[in-house]
Amino acid sequence: MVALKNTIYNNSHLTKSSATIQERKGYILSLPAPLSFSQIQQQLNSKVGKMPISSIAIGTPADASSPDALKAALAEFISMLIFVFAGEGAGMAFGKLTDGGAATPAGLISASIAHAFALFVAVSVGANISGGHVNPAVTFGAFVGGHISLLRSVLYWIAQCLGSVVACLLLKFATGGLETSAFALSSGVGEWNAVVFEIVMTFGLVYTVYATAVDPKKGDLGIIAPLAIGFIVGANILAGGAFDGASMNPAVSFGPAVVSWTWNSHWVYWLGPFVGAAIAALVYEVIFIGSSTHEPLPTTDY
Amino acid sequence: MVALKNTIYNNSHLTKSSATIQERKGYILSLPAPLSFSQIQQQLNSKVGKMPISSIAIGTPADASSPDALKAALAEFISMLIFVFAGEGAGMAFGKLTDGGAATPAGLISASIAHAFALFVAVSVGANISGGHVNPAVTFGAFVGGHISLLRSVLYWIAQCLGSVVACLLLKFATGGLETSAFALSSGVGEWNAVVFEIVMTFGLVYTVYATAVDPKKGDLGIIAPLAIGFIVGANILAGGAFDGASMNPAVSFGPAVVSWTWNSHWVYWLGPFVGAAIAALVYEVIFIGSSTHEPLPTTDY
Amino acid sequence: MVALKNTIYNNSHLTKSSATIQERKGYILSLPAPLSFSQIQQQLNSKVGKMPISSIAIGTPADASSPDALKAALAEFISMLIFVFAGEGAGMAFGKLTDGGAATPAGLISASIAHAFALFVAVSVGANISGGHVNPAVTFGAFVGGHISLLRSVLYWIAQCLGSVVACLLLKFATGGLETSAFALSSGVGEWNAVVFEIVMTFGLVYTVYATAVDPKKGDLGIIAPLAIGFIVGANILAGGAFDGASMNPAVSFGPAVVSWTWNSHWVYWLGPFVGAAIAALVYEVIFIGSSTHEPLPTTDY
Amino acid sequence: MVALKNTIYNNSHLTKSSATIQERKGYILSLPAPLSFSQIQQQLNSKVGKMPISSIAIGTPADASSPDALKAALAEFISMLIFVFAGEGAGMAFGKLTDGGAATPAGLISASIAHAFALFVAVSVGANISGGHVNPAVTFGAFVGGHISLLRSVLYWIAQCLGSVVACLLLKFATGGLETSAFALSSGVGEWNAVVFEIVMTFGLVYTVYATAVDPKKGDLGIIAPLAIGFIVGANILAGGAFDGASMNPAVSFGPAVVSWTWNSHWVYWLGPFVGAAIAALVYEVIFIGSSTHEPLPTTDY
Repeated sequence: MVALKNTIYNNSHLTKSSATIQERKGYILSLPAPLSFSQIQQQLNSKVGKMPISSIAIGTPADASSPDALKAALAEFISMLIFVFAGEGAGMAFGKLTDGGAATPAGLISASIAHAFALFVAVSVGANISGGHVNPAVTFGAFVGGHISLLRSVLYWIAQCLGSVVACLLLKFATGGLETSAFALSSGVGEWNAVVFEIVMTFGLVYTVYATAVDPKKGDLGIIAPLAIGFIVGANILAGGAFDGASMNPAVSFGPAVVSWTWNSHWVYWLGPFVGAAIAALVYEVIFIGSSTHEPLPTTDY
Repeated sequence: MVALKNTIYNNSHLTKSSATIQERKGYILSLPAPLSFSQIQQQLNSKVGKMPISSIAIGTPADASSPDALKAALAEFISMLIFVFAGEGAGMAFGKLTDGGAATPAGLISASIAHAFALFVAVSVGANISGGHVNPAVTFGAFVGGHISLLRSVLYWIAQCLGSVVACLLLKFATGGLETSAFALSSGVGEWNAVVFEIVMTFGLVYTVYATAVDPKKGDLGIIAPLAIGFIVGANILAGGAFDGASMNPAVSFGPAVVSWTWNSHWVYWLGPFVGAAIAALVYEVIFIGSSTHEPLPTTDY
Repeated sequence: MVALKNTIYNNSHLTKSSATIQERKGYILSLPAPLSFSQIQQQLNSKVGKMPISSIAIGTPADASSPDALKAALAEFISMLIFVFAGEGAGMAFGKLTDGGAATPAGLISASIAHAFALFVAVSVGANISGGHVNPAVTFGAFVGGHISLLRSVLYWIAQCLGSVVACLLLKFATGGLETSAFALSSGVGEWNAVVFEIVMTFGLVYTVYATAVDPKKGDLGIIAPLAIGFIVGANILAGGAFDGASMNPAVSFGPAVVSWTWNSHWVYWLGPFVGAAIAALVYEVIFIGSSTHEPLPTTDY
Repeated sequence: MVALKNTIYNNSHLTKSSATIQERKGYILSLPAPLSFSQIQQQLNSKVGKMPISSIAIGTPADASSPDALKAALAEFISMLIFVFAGEGAGMAFGKLTDGGAATPAGLISASIAHAFALFVAVSVGANISGGHVNPAVTFGAFVGGHISLLRSVLYWIAQCLGSVVACLLLKFATGGLETSAFALSSGVGEWNAVVFEIVMTFGLVYTVYATAVDPKKGDLGIIAPLAIGFIVGANILAGGAFDGASMNPAVSFGPAVVSWTWNSHWVYWLGPFVGAAIAALVYEVIFIGSSTHEPLPTTDY
């Protein structure tokens, strides 16, 4: 944050005053705004540098109640609704076409494509408003990396879970009353097996978010970031879908669980993704972002 | 067109004079040109600002008869022909390979990929000429948001429906006379269920159009906008395809209905998409575009 | 060409001398270089304007024998080899897995994805060297639009056909001697039905090439042009694959025909694509490129 | 690193002094840093010019032990883990859903999409740190072209193989103990058939890496390079998957071989990819990069 202020001070008076406010807020638990593609880019341009993990914070009430915060929450709600409607809907369509038959490779492919395409779109449409998290685990990963305050995170989590529930209610009505099947473990897969599955897959997802959207060095990768974020979920579903449903996203599991009121092993779909997201955020932030913004030491020879 | 000429010959006074014309045009029913990616970008560059919903208008006859208007209509016709030829053709191929068998997950995947890929292309090839609507509901959403006049919209609707009909006629001949199956509701899905399905899915589609192609803040998202527009349709087909065919596009339903002369529940595929498009346009325009272009109020403290 | 020379003359002495050569070559049937993404972009930047259809020409021997021409031909050969190896190979894999069973929806999906992905890549890797045609029909479309000379086109056609043949020979060896099945019409589809199929599908393909890669107004669309070119083929295969194999590419049909020495209805796969390509080139060049580069007439009122 | 520091402290003399250092390093076996998208772009911008094949070298110990080298190795390890977890996991999911049944077209499609999507992501997330090789054959191709030293290559190979092994161990635990099937030849396919298959497919892959990511002329193609790299693998799997598993990547074959301790024909998956990669690197470097960076000779006439 100190480096941040120094950079901004030397620019203009307009920027300076906002820096002052920023600074004052720093003492009262205020926090950087939620991460969004354009903001990250701005920071890159203004050479602001890294957001250290030491900037983890609770945030001010405005983080969860200002008009911008509410707009961001609405954007998360809508993105999640679009994502879950297509993803969970694809599962219900498979059930309809097979009379509730067992999962098949074609069913996995359908789930993979539906989630890959829809998440790509959901991240894209939210990117410039809320940062396009569309996933409580991604929000948690951004929190761990110091890119969003706790209060704003809670606001996002509520919006994301609501979006998923509303999508499932709409699906239930639009399909003429079909069940919105909750995520479940297949035979031979224990809860801790599934936790590991979710940890590894969500690690891949949040690592992708960091490398393509958060990293100030990302460059042109930012253009295809939403595609990468959607497609890693699509790829992982082809692996994990046959074992634990491959959620990587607590809200995606939460909506169907609420509407079908099925809570077996539900904790797996919160613990796994949150742990995987935290590991990815720490690894990427500390190792790949952290040191790369260190000023190179002046050396005369090598 | 008047504003355009001002741009060319009187560049330095652009923002002010074109704004004045804009205002005056509001009283004489003249309207902004149809939305196209490059024009939106121009507007962004020239800081023209938002196109308010209050700019909804009927338009001048030139909107539907000038050479540029006719070219745009031709582009919509061709894009729709390309899109429907692949999409409806994929359905006919499935029928051929399965001897008219019931829908299967593989059939849905085929329909999803055909529509996703073809719509991505159809939007891309039309983007710089007509704006790449390729969908009467998208045109209606652009109209509701004030980006295209009613007369130009009617011209687009005619071109889009014609493109779909011609694609189906070509398919009928090229396949040696197979039927071009019209969209239909599957058992257990009532007409109002299907209307809700179409509303939610088209909401997602038009919201995507607004967020990635219309929003002046879109930035690099504009590069992958056609991909996002195509892929949200592909994702939704994997959900809705098993229940009501997942049209999201009145023209896509109109062509097969005409050529096979089947009109059961046809109104569903107009009402649903138009309502979904209108909601998406209003939500995005009012909440996410509307306020973001307000000049920030000068404040001395916070 | 006059406008071209005027633009170049005002730049520098280095450019000027090459312009002089260009000019002199103009009298001896010399022609513009084959279209490549970067060259098109250069032309855009230097405001060169349109390549009129009136620039159709035979070309000089150098067009087919200079080092650059041979490199471009090699690039077309390699791109075609990569494309056909994956595309035809996917068909042979389907035959292997189903013991030569009849086409199924899953088989079509496999063919669609293999061709879409591989053509996207083949166009990408050739784009900056040969223009990334990877298709005699695209080369013919570029010739009709005046973007490549006849001699260079013939060179490309030979390279493309050779690439396809070599890919099929490699497949025959690598699969342990399986047959490289030639394209064929399915029952109920006459040769003229198939010609129409190929015309419409190749029209869509070459129209896409023009709109996303050739059109000087293409802007950012150029970034995703190879994706659009690959994906329209993938989409069309889901429609036409069940009826006539959906070639859209004479070289793709030529390789398997040579190696399996099967020539039934082979002419369909040359006539259809060439007619479709010519129509697309003429429509796009005359209507959408032609007039858009006219200098706007000065007008005082409207 | 020396050249880098010169860039920072002595910008105006960059091109000359760094060239001199480059030349001197040639005699002491020091080598250019591993290829990464951003570095390539830097080189392009600073007109450093080509990396000739004559720059093949062993490298200094720092190439395999400096903090940057270890970070790059960690990035390769993580990218490979993400890639193999999804790819091999998709194969295990197919086995689970079909009770270990024989390969089907749907199984190939699943493998194709899983590998295409996951490799696209794995290359993207590694691109700015390690160059995003995610494949010992790609690293070998970069070595043959003179873009990475032997010592750094060995470091990458170890990291890549470790990533694959760890992914398979995690899969074994997360799936409740299922076998991680090793790559194998299908009936009728001899080892040398498979070697040719791997040579041709890996040639296509490494040629794609060179054309879209390494070539200084690549331009905007660099934006979609990771997509092209992932998708050519996806396309080739639809062809080769039914015959030899379509590895194109020794590390991808190595992990399952270690964990299932199955070494039948394992050498095929090292020899084929390395030979294909070397051919692609030589062809592209000598023919398409080599001559294009030659200064144009001054000529007075033509």
